[in-house]
Amino acid sequence: MITVKKEVLMDYGCRVFEAAGVSGDEAAWVTDCLVRANMKGVDSHGIQQVPGYVRGVQAGRTKPGAKMEILKETPAVTIVDGFGGFGYSIARQAMQLTIKKAKKLGIAFTGIHRLGHIGRVGRWPEMALEQDMIGIASQPGGVFVAPWGGIERKLPINPISVAIPTGQGSPFVMDFSLGPIAGGRLSILVERGMKVPPGWLIDDEGNPTDDPSYGARKGAQLPLGQAGLGYKGYALSMFLSVLTGPLIAAYNLERHRPVGVFLGVLDIAAFTPIDEFKKSMDDMVADIKSSKLAKGFKEILIPGEPEYNTEQRRIKSGIPLDDAIWKRLMDTAEKVGVDTSMYEVEKGGVVLHPSYTLKDRY
Amino acid sequence: MITVKKEVLMDYGCRVFEAAGVSGDEAAWVTDCLVRANMKGVDSHGIQQVPGYVRGVQAGRTKPGAKMEILKETPAVTIVDGFGGFGYSIARQAMQLTIKKAKKLGIAFTGIHRLGHIGRVGRWPEMALEQDMIGIASQPGGVFVAPWGGIERKLPINPISVAIPTGQGSPFVMDFSLGPIAGGRLSILVERGMKVPPGWLIDDEGNPTDDPSYGARKGAQLPLGQAGLGYKGYALSMFLSVLTGPLIAAYNLERHRPVGVFLGVLDIAAFTPIDEFKKSMDDMVADIKSSKLAKGFKEILIPGEPEYNTEQRRIKSGIPLDDAIWKRLMDTAEKVGVDTSMYEVEKGGVVLHPSYTLKDRY
Repeated sequence: MITVKKEVLMDYGCRVFEAAGVSGDEAAWVTDCLVRANMKGVDSHGIQQVPGYVRGVQAGRTKPGAKMEILKETPAVTIVDGFGGFGYSIARQAMQLTIKKAKKLGIAFTGIHRLGHIGRVGRWPEMALEQDMIGIASQPGGVFVAPWGGIERKLPINPISVAIPTGQGSPFVMDFSLGPIAGGRLSILVERGMKVPPGWLIDDEGNPTDDPSYGARKGAQLPLGQAGLGYKGYALSMFLSVLTGPLIAAYNLERHRPVGVFLGVLDIAAFTPIDEFKKSMDDMVADIKSSKLAKGFKEILIPGEPEYNTEQRRIKSGIPLDDAIWKRLMDTAEKVGVDTSMYEVEKGGVVLHPSYTLKDRY
Repeated sequence: MITVKKEVLMDYGCRVFEAAGVSGDEAAWVTDCLVRANMKGVDSHGIQQVPGYVRGVQAGRTKPGAKMEILKETPAVTIVDGFGGFGYSIARQAMQLTIKKAKKLGIAFTGIHRLGHIGRVGRWPEMALEQDMIGIASQPGGVFVAPWGGIERKLPINPISVAIPTGQGSPFVMDFSLGPIAGGRLSILVERGMKVPPGWLIDDEGNPTDDPSYGARKGAQLPLGQAGLGYKGYALSMFLSVLTGPLIAAYNLERHRPVGVFLGVLDIAAFTPIDEFKKSMDDMVADIKSSKLAKGFKEILIPGEPEYNTEQRRIKSGIPLDDAIWKRLMDTAEKVGVDTSMYEVEKGGVVLHPSYTLKDRY
């Protein structure tokens, strides 16, 4: 395990993407999204994605510089096609437009068809957060969840993120699947020989199981809700599937599933003076945090606060990376002709050789 | 137990409210909301509310004919005050305005401050449904739910309803609290000596309990989510609390809680041709219903379908009412001077005396 400062990873990503033919601005944006995921502890969606993305560009699957195409719009609603571009760039363009529209009217929703990988879903609502707005994003994810009363995988796990500003401390950033567990995390549990808690998964006959080899390719995940309450998670899941599917004309009739991305922005100032809003938010957060603790908890955190705390720590300590991942990153750099001698591993940390300077992107 | 046809209950409500000084239109609307709740099997929010509402009017607490006051607006956002009026009438006015705005722009959100009782939350999204639009409504409800990691009641149970049109059969109408169980249902379980399922409630020390005397006035309810997943229900609950509180300037700083009503309308046609939308919805519903069944289930239903089926049955069979409730309704009628001899109980059903004709409101 080594640690790398975020500035060094930003420098790395920018150089590698640019060498692969991506423009400076787009290279910086995609890298920023990845490094931000690492900073928040969501390493699966972080810098380790670079080699795959570079292969995508080289194979022509991902077209740098692609612009979204507007298919339909009102002053508050937009339907766009993002075919062929970096998902990160298309989602940025779509969210920028949604924010612009919400600034005029108070709310705006956007649906995106045909989009490349957009990484950590929380990134998109955070764009609204930076403007003192509420941001919402959802995409379907894998079809892993059984309906209430059924035992087959029929509903997507529906990753959803909502970001809400606060006055002090961590903002509210919820970012999770409505279904129990992401497919990637199931694979990790299988690799490590671990089990899942009761009530998450069923096998092909509908019997409860704690075996993480079920829930993605066989068996199914159960909808959100404790004993007898799964009908609530089931309904919420269908609602999100409507937003990312039929509503935005992004429902695939052959595969019986939604395939789009849904973005929403609420401009708080159109509803309530922002200072009053933040005062109320801070009071709500303080009141929730004042609750007596459950056994095994040291503190009550608001959604997004664990990631916020990780980010504060990693600003100081850097981002931990497996040696194998670092090696893969260096291999990719060499393949696109970036001189890797500028990055030196020293005492478990990556430092920049004194004869190089960082690209100033962060 | 007796049964009453909906037309007779409509007639009853209209006559009684009008005799109490409510205009014909408002009397018909409030009665319609109540009888519709009965028709869908939500009898707690049905005709049995009439005596209380009449007392409210007579005591001057509820002012018939009140109009909502607009406090702030954009073409898509409205904040209104509903002080003093029938909640049903204020919510109707607010939803009508929200629908009108959504027809122009595709989406509209409205926040309501200070509102009387609005009964079954599902009624408001159904107004959008009638116009081939998606409707959303949420209000806070009792503060019964513990945060993730805490054991005190800090979050409201957040009743939320979303109504979405389909092409065939029952529309999608979800209508439930995000928290495990409404306060009224807890009281009924206590009266009947029944228990609640595991994972719903904790006592004052945070220990699990199946005793329904906890969860409203002592102990707490746990947020939505099976083992280890309550952080998801907790986050969703906070999000809804922001919509019904800080966002719409309806957060009470003394009581640390949201106190408003949030309404939303999405005009499907602004996103997608309505026929295409309904075709996708019907496919999604058919695919979900095609799942192999879990043990103990005869059929997979979509949210709102149980209530839809009850309504189809009650159109034929009438609405069952306790004798005691019928007696209370007749007492109230007599107090406001409505001649109750027109309603006759015969063979367990209420019929109208041949010398009277129904008020034509339904």
